[in-house]
Amino acid sequence: MQLGFVTAILPDQSLEEVLRTAADIGYDCVEVMCWPPGKAERRYAGVTHIDISTLDEAGIERVKELQERYGVFISSLGYYPNVLGGDAGAAQVAIDHLYDLLEAAAALGINTVTTFVGRDKDRTIEAQWEDFLTIWKPLVERAGELGVRIGIENCPMRFTADEWPGGNNLAVSPDVWENMWRDIPAAHWGLNYDPSHLVLMQMDYTRPFRDYPERMIHVHAKDLRIDREKLDRHGIFSHPGLWHTPKLPGMGDVDWGKFFSHLTDAGYRGPVCVEVEDRAYEGDLELRKRSLRQSHDYLRQFIA
Amino acid sequence: MQLGFVTAILPDQSLEEVLRTAADIGYDCVEVMCWPPGKAERRYAGVTHIDISTLDEAGIERVKELQERYGVFISSLGYYPNVLGGDAGAAQVAIDHLYDLLEAAAALGINTVTTFVGRDKDRTIEAQWEDFLTIWKPLVERAGELGVRIGIENCPMRFTADEWPGGNNLAVSPDVWENMWRDIPAAHWGLNYDPSHLVLMQMDYTRPFRDYPERMIHVHAKDLRIDREKLDRHGIFSHPGLWHTPKLPGMGDVDWGKFFSHLTDAGYRGPVCVEVEDRAYEGDLELRKRSLRQSHDYLRQFIA
Amino acid sequence: MQLGFVTAILPDQSLEEVLRTAADIGYDCVEVMCWPPGKAERRYAGVTHIDISTLDEAGIERVKELQERYGVFISSLGYYPNVLGGDAGAAQVAIDHLYDLLEAAAALGINTVTTFVGRDKDRTIEAQWEDFLTIWKPLVERAGELGVRIGIENCPMRFTADEWPGGNNLAVSPDVWENMWRDIPAAHWGLNYDPSHLVLMQMDYTRPFRDYPERMIHVHAKDLRIDREKLDRHGIFSHPGLWHTPKLPGMGDVDWGKFFSHLTDAGYRGPVCVEVEDRAYEGDLELRKRSLRQSHDYLRQFIA
Amino acid sequence: MQLGFVTAILPDQSLEEVLRTAADIGYDCVEVMCWPPGKAERRYAGVTHIDISTLDEAGIERVKELQERYGVFISSLGYYPNVLGGDAGAAQVAIDHLYDLLEAAAALGINTVTTFVGRDKDRTIEAQWEDFLTIWKPLVERAGELGVRIGIENCPMRFTADEWPGGNNLAVSPDVWENMWRDIPAAHWGLNYDPSHLVLMQMDYTRPFRDYPERMIHVHAKDLRIDREKLDRHGIFSHPGLWHTPKLPGMGDVDWGKFFSHLTDAGYRGPVCVEVEDRAYEGDLELRKRSLRQSHDYLRQFIA
Amino acid sequence: MQLGFVTAILPDQSLEEVLRTAADIGYDCVEVMCWPPGKAERRYAGVTHIDISTLDEAGIERVKELQERYGVFISSLGYYPNVLGGDAGAAQVAIDHLYDLLEAAAALGINTVTTFVGRDKDRTIEAQWEDFLTIWKPLVERAGELGVRIGIENCPMRFTADEWPGGNNLAVSPDVWENMWRDIPAAHWGLNYDPSHLVLMQMDYTRPFRDYPERMIHVHAKDLRIDREKLDRHGIFSHPGLWHTPKLPGMGDVDWGKFFSHLTDAGYRGPVCVEVEDRAYEGDLELRKRSLRQSHDYLRQFIA
Amino acid sequence: MQLGFVTAILPDQSLEEVLRTAADIGYDCVEVMCWPPGKAERRYAGVTHIDISTLDEAGIERVKELQERYGVFISSLGYYPNVLGGDAGAAQVAIDHLYDLLEAAAALGINTVTTFVGRDKDRTIEAQWEDFLTIWKPLVERAGELGVRIGIENCPMRFTADEWPGGNNLAVSPDVWENMWRDIPAAHWGLNYDPSHLVLMQMDYTRPFRDYPERMIHVHAKDLRIDREKLDRHGIFSHPGLWHTPKLPGMGDVDWGKFFSHLTDAGYRGPVCVEVEDRAYEGDLELRKRSLRQSHDYLRQFIA
Repeated sequence: MQLGFVTAILPDQSLEEVLRTAADIGYDCVEVMCWPPGKAERRYAGVTHIDISTLDEAGIERVKELQERYGVFISSLGYYPNVLGGDAGAAQVAIDHLYDLLEAAAALGINTVTTFVGRDKDRTIEAQWEDFLTIWKPLVERAGELGVRIGIENCPMRFTADEWPGGNNLAVSPDVWENMWRDIPAAHWGLNYDPSHLVLMQMDYTRPFRDYPERMIHVHAKDLRIDREKLDRHGIFSHPGLWHTPKLPGMGDVDWGKFFSHLTDAGYRGPVCVEVEDRAYEGDLELRKRSLRQSHDYLRQFIA
Repeated sequence: MQLGFVTAILPDQSLEEVLRTAADIGYDCVEVMCWPPGKAERRYAGVTHIDISTLDEAGIERVKELQERYGVFISSLGYYPNVLGGDAGAAQVAIDHLYDLLEAAAALGINTVTTFVGRDKDRTIEAQWEDFLTIWKPLVERAGELGVRIGIENCPMRFTADEWPGGNNLAVSPDVWENMWRDIPAAHWGLNYDPSHLVLMQMDYTRPFRDYPERMIHVHAKDLRIDREKLDRHGIFSHPGLWHTPKLPGMGDVDWGKFFSHLTDAGYRGPVCVEVEDRAYEGDLELRKRSLRQSHDYLRQFIA
Repeated sequence: MQLGFVTAILPDQSLEEVLRTAADIGYDCVEVMCWPPGKAERRYAGVTHIDISTLDEAGIERVKELQERYGVFISSLGYYPNVLGGDAGAAQVAIDHLYDLLEAAAALGINTVTTFVGRDKDRTIEAQWEDFLTIWKPLVERAGELGVRIGIENCPMRFTADEWPGGNNLAVSPDVWENMWRDIPAAHWGLNYDPSHLVLMQMDYTRPFRDYPERMIHVHAKDLRIDREKLDRHGIFSHPGLWHTPKLPGMGDVDWGKFFSHLTDAGYRGPVCVEVEDRAYEGDLELRKRSLRQSHDYLRQFIA
Repeated sequence: MQLGFVTAILPDQSLEEVLRTAADIGYDCVEVMCWPPGKAERRYAGVTHIDISTLDEAGIERVKELQERYGVFISSLGYYPNVLGGDAGAAQVAIDHLYDLLEAAAALGINTVTTFVGRDKDRTIEAQWEDFLTIWKPLVERAGELGVRIGIENCPMRFTADEWPGGNNLAVSPDVWENMWRDIPAAHWGLNYDPSHLVLMQMDYTRPFRDYPERMIHVHAKDLRIDREKLDRHGIFSHPGLWHTPKLPGMGDVDWGKFFSHLTDAGYRGPVCVEVEDRAYEGDLELRKRSLRQSHDYLRQFIA
Repeated sequence: MQLGFVTAILPDQSLEEVLRTAADIGYDCVEVMCWPPGKAERRYAGVTHIDISTLDEAGIERVKELQERYGVFISSLGYYPNVLGGDAGAAQVAIDHLYDLLEAAAALGINTVTTFVGRDKDRTIEAQWEDFLTIWKPLVERAGELGVRIGIENCPMRFTADEWPGGNNLAVSPDVWENMWRDIPAAHWGLNYDPSHLVLMQMDYTRPFRDYPERMIHVHAKDLRIDREKLDRHGIFSHPGLWHTPKLPGMGDVDWGKFFSHLTDAGYRGPVCVEVEDRAYEGDLELRKRSLRQSHDYLRQFIA
Repeated sequence: MQLGFVTAILPDQSLEEVLRTAADIGYDCVEVMCWPPGKAERRYAGVTHIDISTLDEAGIERVKELQERYGVFISSLGYYPNVLGGDAGAAQVAIDHLYDLLEAAAALGINTVTTFVGRDKDRTIEAQWEDFLTIWKPLVERAGELGVRIGIENCPMRFTADEWPGGNNLAVSPDVWENMWRDIPAAHWGLNYDPSHLVLMQMDYTRPFRDYPERMIHVHAKDLRIDREKLDRHGIFSHPGLWHTPKLPGMGDVDWGKFFSHLTDAGYRGPVCVEVEDRAYEGDLELRKRSLRQSHDYLRQFIA
C-alpha cells in the first residue's frame, strides 16, 4: 500500500507545490483534483491541479517529470460531479468531462479515475436506475477500451438541507453496489472506498473487504465522529450535518487498526489517500499542511 | 400507571368484545381506535371501535356502561391520519374528524385524543411549518376549550418506499417538539410517547422523560429490533423497513427496566398502552390475543 | 409455541406423576425420556418414563389417555446415547433402541424423536464421516417411512476429562449441520436446538434461526454462565467444565428476549422444553420442582 | 430461598396488617423493624412493628401466632442505628437496645438480628478501629451465647451533606469485612448483603458470593440507578445523593439474573427481603403496596 | 496546539538543561515549575526551575534568551500550593508567592500562571466558599491588571489518607467551576485542564470542551488506569490511591483520539503539557527522559 | 525495555544481514533462531541464524563482534521443538539440542534460551505430567548451573487438524504454569510471554503480569484477530485456524496500551520481540521487512 492525500485540501497550490508538500511530509502519492476550470459551488469542489482541457503532450510530459522529480506518484485523477441530477446541461458538461478524464488518465499513464455515479436526489434509486445505466454503461465501456479503472466513491452526498432527500450519489451501500455490478459487470470499475461514510450510515466498514476485495480500486482515509448528544436531539432522519463531525484519521469513530487489519487481508496493495474535511484544520495553509502531516504520521503506524 | 393496549390489533371485535378481552387478560384500560368508517389503506389503520359519526346520548351511556361493566377504562380516543399531506380533500375530512373526536372525547368524559400532526412527506419540515401552524393552532385551541388533552405520537411514519422521503408525521424529535411547543405553547397538548421510534432513530429514549415530563400525555409500549446484518447491507438512509423488525415488548431493543425507571421518576401516572405490530403474532385472532397476554405479563413486572 | 420440560429432572416420578407436575405448574408439554431400562452412567441419562421395550396397545392407550387427562402433551420421545463411539456392542444396542423409538413415536402419534448423532470422541469429525453416514442414512430413511421427525441436539458432550478430546456428539455447529444435510438431505430431520451450547462455544445463537428456520424440529431452553475468572485461569482448550456453570433460564448468559425475538421470526410454532442441569437446584424433589416452577414463570414472559 | 420485604416501608401499619399485606401479595417473610419507640430523624428509620421494650410472654406468643395465621415468617429483627458516632448518650441507648434485640430474637425463635456496625463519620476507619472492637466484641459474644446470628448491612450511609465525610457505617467493603472477621472471627456474624451499595461504589456485587458464601446471613434486594449526566456534573467525590436514584428491583443497575445466578451457586437458602426506597412510590399507602407487589412479581422470576 | 511537558519531572536539571532536553526530544514548550526555594513535602512539589524571588532584569533576559536559543517556549509558570488549607502562615506565604508569580509572568512575557485554588480539606466546599472568594477575588483582579491569565488545575488532590476527606483543591467539577465563574466572572481565568482527574472521578472528560471552550487556559496530558480488581475490594469511598495507577499517555483509560477530537473542535490552540507521574518511569534520570520521549511520540500522532 | 524481533521471519538472511536490518529499522535487539540445520516441517520453524552445532571460539567472537558493530544485541537463543511428543528419536535429538543451546547461550554471554516444553498431543496434560518432569527437571537444573534463564512460550501449538487434539506445548495457562513452578520451582525459568495466545484462548492477558511478574523472562509481541463470523460457523472446539488470523501488532485484538500499562507496572525491563506471522506480509523479503518496520513504528509509541 501507498499513503497519499486528496489534493482538494490545497486549492491554492500548483501541482508542483502540491507534490513538494507531499514529498516534504513523506507521502507516496496524491489523488489529483481535475475539475473543469471555473467556480466551485460546494466545499472542496472545483479544485483543478491538472487542467485536462488544455493538457497537451508537453503538459503530459511535465506531469510525468514532476512525479519523478518529487518521488511522489499520482494515484488517480479525481472529479466528483453529479451526472444524474441537477441541471441537465450541467450534467452533460460533467459527462463530457468524465470522458475527457478517462482519456487523460490513459495518456498520463495513471489509468485510474475516481468519481461519483451521481443521483437525482428527488427520486428513489429504483426510479432512476435506467437513467443510471444509460449514462454509465458507455462510460465504463470507454474506460475499458482505454485500460482505465474507475473507482466510485461510496459517499452519500447527503449532509445538508440542499442535498435532501436523496443526496447526490447513489452508490452508497452493498445492496446498490451489487446491483451496479450485476447490470454493468465489467471488472475494471469498483469503489473508491471511504470507511467514514459507513460509520455515518451505521454500517460495518470492514465487511466489504471480505465480500468484494477485487472491487477495491482506490481507498480514501477520512474519519468522522458521531455526536451522540446531537443525534439524541435530531435522530437519523434529520440532516446528518446536524449530528456528525468530519475529523482527521484517529480522531473519529473509525478503528484504523481494524480497518487495516481487514484491508491487508483483502490483498489490497493500492493507494490509501487521506481526505481532509476537518474544519478545525481549515484556518490557513499552515494549518492544512499540519493536518496532512498529522494524518500522515497517524496512518504510517499501519502503512510502513 | 395503568396498563392497556391499542385496540387496532382487534379490528374484528366489537368494543364490548375488546373490553372483555382486556378484562380477561387483566388490562386496566384501552386506547380505542376511532377512524371514520370506511376502508383502511395501511396496516392497523381504519379500525373503528367507536363510531364517532353516529355517537348519540345513548351511545355515550353505553360506552360508559361498558367500561364499568368490564372494569376497563378508555384511556384515549385514537386516530392517526395525515392532515398535512396527501390529497387536500382527504386531509380536510381528517381535520373535520379530529374536531369531532375532540367533542366526543369531552362528551365521553375521556378527555384525551391521540393522533399524529401529519406531514407533507415531500417537503422539509421548515418548508411546511406555516401550514402546520395554520391547521394545529385552532385544533389545540378547540381542545383547550373542551378540556381535552392531545397526545401526538412521535412516530416518523417513514418505513417503506411509499412514505419516502419525509414520512407522514413531523413530530419525531426533541428539536421538532420544542419548536411545536414554542409556537403553540398550550399545556394541554404534548406527546403520545412511544420509545420504539427513538430506538429506530438511534436516540436516547429516556431523555425526554427528564426534559419534558409534563408533556407526557399518553404512552405507547411498542418494541423493535434493529437487524444489524440488514443494516450493514442497506445503511440508515435506505427505507427503515429493510433493517428493523417490530416486536412485542421484551423482544426488541428497548430496555424496559430503564424505560420505566425514568418514566416513574418523571412522575408519570397515566396509561401505558401496548401497541402490537409484530408480524409473528398476526396470524389469527387467537395469536393476536396471545400477543396481548404475553405483552401484559411481560410489562406487569414494571407496572404492578 | 408450547412450553414444556425435559423429564430427566424427575427420574423418580412415574409418567403420570410427571404429567401431573407439569399440569400443576402450568406447562403445556414434556419431552419424555425413553432410555432402555438399566443403569445410567452419566448425570441425567438413563431415565425411563416410557419403557418402549414393553409398550403394547394398552400401554399406548394409557399414554394417550394420560396426556388428555392432565392436558399436557408429549412433544417428543428423548434418548441421548452415543451410537458412533464407545463399545461397539453398546452402540448397536443404542441403534436398535433408536429404531424402536421411531416405531414407538409413530405408534403413540407423537411423531418426534430427539437424540444425538453420537461421535467417536477420539477421531476428528472428518475421519468418521463415513461411519456417521452408514448409521444415520437408514435411520433417517426409516423415520421418513414412519412419518417421524428427528431432532438432533446440538450439544458437544465435551465437558469433562472423560469426554476429551472430541466429545460424544458431532452435530455441534453450522458447518457440521450443513454437511449433515448435504449428505442426508431429508427434510424430516433437523435440530433439537439448545442455545446454551452456542454460548459455551462463543457463537451467535440466533443466526441459525435466520439460516435454517425449517430445521428447527424441537427446542431446548437451557442456560449457562461463562465464569470469566475461571476461564482466565484455564483457557478455552481446557475441559469446559472448569469454566462454566449450567443455570436455570434467566440466570445465565442467554438473552432470552433476543432468543425468542428471532425464534418467533423464524416462524417456529413448536415446543420449547426447559432442561434443568443447575446443580443449585438438585438437592431434592422439592427443589427440582421449584426449578421447574421458576423456569416456567421466567419463560412465560416470552411464551404467553 | 424465601422472598420477603423490610417492613420500614409500612410505618403506619400494625404488625398484623403488615403480615396480612405480605400474605396477600404472596411474600414468604418479612424483616421486622424494631426501633425503640420515639421519633425518627431520617427516612425509613424509627419504625417499630414489634416494640421490644414491652415484649412479654403474651406478646411473644402473639407474634408467633400471627406468623402462623398469615403463613408469613419473620426473617429477622431489624434496627439500624449508629453505635459508633454521634452523641455518646444516644449511642449507648442504641447499644443497650441492640442487646435487648438479641434477647428478643432468641425469645421469639427468630434468631437473627440485622443492623449496622456504625461509624464516627469524622474519622478514618483506621482511627476508630479500637472503638469498633470495644463495642462489637461483647455484642457478638452475647449473640453467640443466645444462638442469634447478626447480619451487618453493607450500606455506606453516606449519601448527603449531613453524612459527610465518612458516613455512618464502616462495614462497606471486602477490605473492611475481612478485617472485621479477622479481629472478631465468630462464625455467627456476617452480612445483611445488599447489592445496590456495591453498584453505588462501582464494585462487583457478585464476588462476595464466591469469596464468603458462609457470611451471607441475610440479603436485601434494593436497586439503584447511577445517573450519568449528573455524575458528569459532580464526580464521585461529591455527595452521592447528587448522582444516583434508589429504585425498585428491575429498574436500576443491578442485573438480578446475574445476582441470583451467583447467589444460588453460593448455596444460600435464606431470605431475600425487598427494601423499598424509591421516591416514585412513596406517595401514599396504596402506592407503597403497589411497590411491594411489583417488586414481588419481578423477583419471583428468580425465586419461584 | 503545542506539545510540552511539566518540568517537575526533572527536578535536578537547571532550566537550561530542561530546555535542552525538551528541544532534543522535539517538544515545543514547557510549563516551568516555580516553587519558592525550599523543601517539598509531597511528590512532584517544591521544584524550582525559575526562582521568582531573585528574578531581576538580567534573569528575565536570560530566561527569554534561553527560550530562543533552544526554540522551546515557556507556556506557563506553574506552582500548586494550597492557599485555603493547612497552616495559616504557610497559606499566606503561598498567597504572597502567587502574587509574585503573576508579576513574574507578566515581566517574562509568558502571561500565564497555572495553580490550584486550594481547599480546607476538613470542610465542605459550601462551608468555605466565602474564604475562597476572599482570597481569589483580589488575585484574579491583580492578574487582570497585569494581563496574566490563570489556569486552575482540576485536580482533586485527594488520593491518600493524609488528604482525606476533602482533598486540597476544590476546583474539581463543572458544578464547582460554574460557581467559581459565577462569583468571579473574569474571562482571564479558567482551567489548566487535565482529563485524567475526570477519569478518576468517573466523569465525561470531553464535555467541558463543549460547555466551556473559552475557559481552557492551559491543558495537561496525564493518564491513569482504574484498577477494577482493587476497586472491587475497596469501593470509591476509600482512598483513590488504593485503586488507580497514574500512567503515561496511551497506557491509561483516557481515549486520546476522542480527547483531541473534542479539544480541536473547541478551537483550542494553546499548549498541551505532559505531566509524568508514572512510578514505572521514576527510577532515574534516563528513565524519566524516556518517559518524556515516549509521551512525546505517542501524543505527536494527535499534535503534528 | 528493548524492542526487538524474532529472526524466523528472515530465513534467507545471514545473521549479519539480520542485524543490519534490525539496525536500519531501529530495533534494539533480536531473538535469534537456532534450529539444528535441516529441513523445517512447519512454517517459521527450522531457521538457523546461529548454527550451534559448529559454534567454536571464533564463531563466538564473531557473534559478539557483530552485535557490537550493529548496535543490536541478541536477547535470546530461540528453538521451539516438541520434546514430549512425536517420534521418540526426534524428541531425543531435540532434547540434546536444547542442552547444547544452554551451553551456547552461556558461552555467548546471552544467558537466555526461549522454547516450548512440548506435549504429547494425544494425551491429557495430567497423563503426561511425569514425562514432562522427567525431561524438564534436569534441563532446568543444567540451565541453573550455567546461569542461563529459560523462557517457555505460552503457545498452545493447536491451530490445525494435524495438531489436534492437544497441541504440541502444554504450557498454556496459569493453571499449568503454577503446576510447573510448583514441581520445578527454580527461579531461573519462566515464560516467554506472548499475549496473542491468551486472546485466542479468551483469557485476560494482563493478569499474569500482576500474578507472576518475576516469571517474565522474555516477551513476544504478536497480535491476532478473532473472526466472529467464522467463529459463529465453527465454534471454539473446532480447529482455531478456522476462526482467527495472526496479524501485526496494532491490527489484532490485543490492546497494546493496556498491555504495556501492566507490563511496565510489573517492573519488566527486558526485551519485547515482534513475532511476524501475518500472511498478508509474507509475499517477499521487501514485504517482510516492511512488516518489521511497521511493527517497530507501532510499538515504539509504548517503548521509547
